[in-house]
Amino acid sequence: MPLPAPLSAANRRVKDARRLSRRSERSERRLFLADGPKAVEGALQVEGCLVEVFAAPEAHLAHPGLLAACESVGVPWTPVEQRGIEALSDAVSPAGVIGVCRLLDVPAQEVLRPGRDLVAICADVRDPGNAGTVVRCADAAGVDGVVLAGSSVDLHNPKTVRASVGSVFHLPVALEPDPLAAVRAAQAAGLTVLAADGAGEVDLFEADEILARPTAWLFGNEAWGLPEELAAAADHRVAIPIHGRAESLNLATAAALCLYASARAQRT
Amino acid sequence: MPLPAPLSAANRRVKDARRLSRRSERSERRLFLADGPKAVEGALQVEGCLVEVFAAPEAHLAHPGLLAACESVGVPWTPVEQRGIEALSDAVSPAGVIGVCRLLDVPAQEVLRPGRDLVAICADVRDPGNAGTVVRCADAAGVDGVVLAGSSVDLHNPKTVRASVGSVFHLPVALEPDPLAAVRAAQAAGLTVLAADGAGEVDLFEADEILARPTAWLFGNEAWGLPEELAAAADHRVAIPIHGRAESLNLATAAALCLYASARAQRT
Repeated sequence: MPLPAPLSAANRRVKDARRLSRRSERSERRLFLADGPKAVEGALQVEGCLVEVFAAPEAHLAHPGLLAACESVGVPWTPVEQRGIEALSDAVSPAGVIGVCRLLDVPAQEVLRPGRDLVAICADVRDPGNAGTVVRCADAAGVDGVVLAGSSVDLHNPKTVRASVGSVFHLPVALEPDPLAAVRAAQAAGLTVLAADGAGEVDLFEADEILARPTAWLFGNEAWGLPEELAAAADHRVAIPIHGRAESLNLATAAALCLYASARAQRT
Repeated sequence: MPLPAPLSAANRRVKDARRLSRRSERSERRLFLADGPKAVEGALQVEGCLVEVFAAPEAHLAHPGLLAACESVGVPWTPVEQRGIEALSDAVSPAGVIGVCRLLDVPAQEVLRPGRDLVAICADVRDPGNAGTVVRCADAAGVDGVVLAGSSVDLHNPKTVRASVGSVFHLPVALEPDPLAAVRAAQAAGLTVLAADGAGEVDLFEADEILARPTAWLFGNEAWGLPEELAAAADHRVAIPIHGRAESLNLATAAALCLYASARAQRT
């Protein structure tokens, strides 16, 4: 069966999808874009997430398995002219496959509930790339879920989705406007809340007894860290030792060190 | 004493300094730009590094201590009109203080010499931000020195300097075109070379006996990792366990986890 003619960048459906690059549009329509084969593959593994796929004219040759997998679960895909794909993607070199997905965020109580071993709460993360990288690290460390709290960046921002390299589709992520409410909910669920805090009283690498408990890590903003009252609400404030002359670590590397220290303590 | 009139963006000295944004120009004149008060402060602490400072008209009010410190060691500073500062800086919001510095790189044998406890070798890192972030992590973990090997990004790229948040001034960094030569030199200096390799045969968190030895970590390119023959030249290939469904970690977080695992094993 011949493929239908690819849609142009001016096609209404392409233009409708393109508007999902705006947060307001995503919130209103409860949809976002998953850009690239890895992201579409991730979306395909979350039941009910992937609505439809737009593919560059040659994409069915480059990614035949992926598009066949979409078809097999009833997700339609439509060829779109290269210029339309470029309009939909914010990547420098679009990979030619873009999914329209239902929003992923879950209620905070789904992440912060009894029985969790390890979760991460990010308060006021502003940079979409950082948020995505933290979700990726959390996924790698085997974290059960992430809460983006306060005025954190949108989980469904294309840069967040890309920086997560598929991980936004791998573990539950909640949005909670009030970081203190997230801390209280974690404590109510029996989790020990550990604030990552350069001035903390506990050394990350001498805290295995604390780290072995069910834990919610609390990370602050990339520039100014955690507000004092939020750090004070945690059960412990934990510092990564700085052995050299660096003043600090960036958010994603600090999160990786903390989450992996917990994973190590909990698994041994 | 009244300040001299600020130089304009068209002034020859400002234009000469501006050309240092090009790698060829930096290599030829053996100079680079340190942008912002943190970087200038860092440069000031490396003997003979800081040549002169350009400051925005109001910078002597914003950073009086820094400019006084420059004067006290004989480093002259010159006011430059705001537009000149913008021309010199590649930051979105220039902080108003920019130093002209002598290049920092040292010979590889200064990093890879007997007596070192912990060094990092980065093979073919391409992104300037990643290179700077790895140097920052290495500094935080107490690493003795870093080698940027192969076709790695330039240490003196403004993005590398900025991403290092001052750390390029804190520890010796060498440039070595041949990554295999760097591995051999590390081994000749008595260092155990550990390749960070997702498919490695050693688990990072079950290797304290290996990690406690004097170590050179070998990290690959951010996209394609380490070439097989380079990984094979290392003494061990070490994998960071992936507990969740992420495929991998990014370079800086992987480096932070490896370097801190060594620091922990060596210090206990």
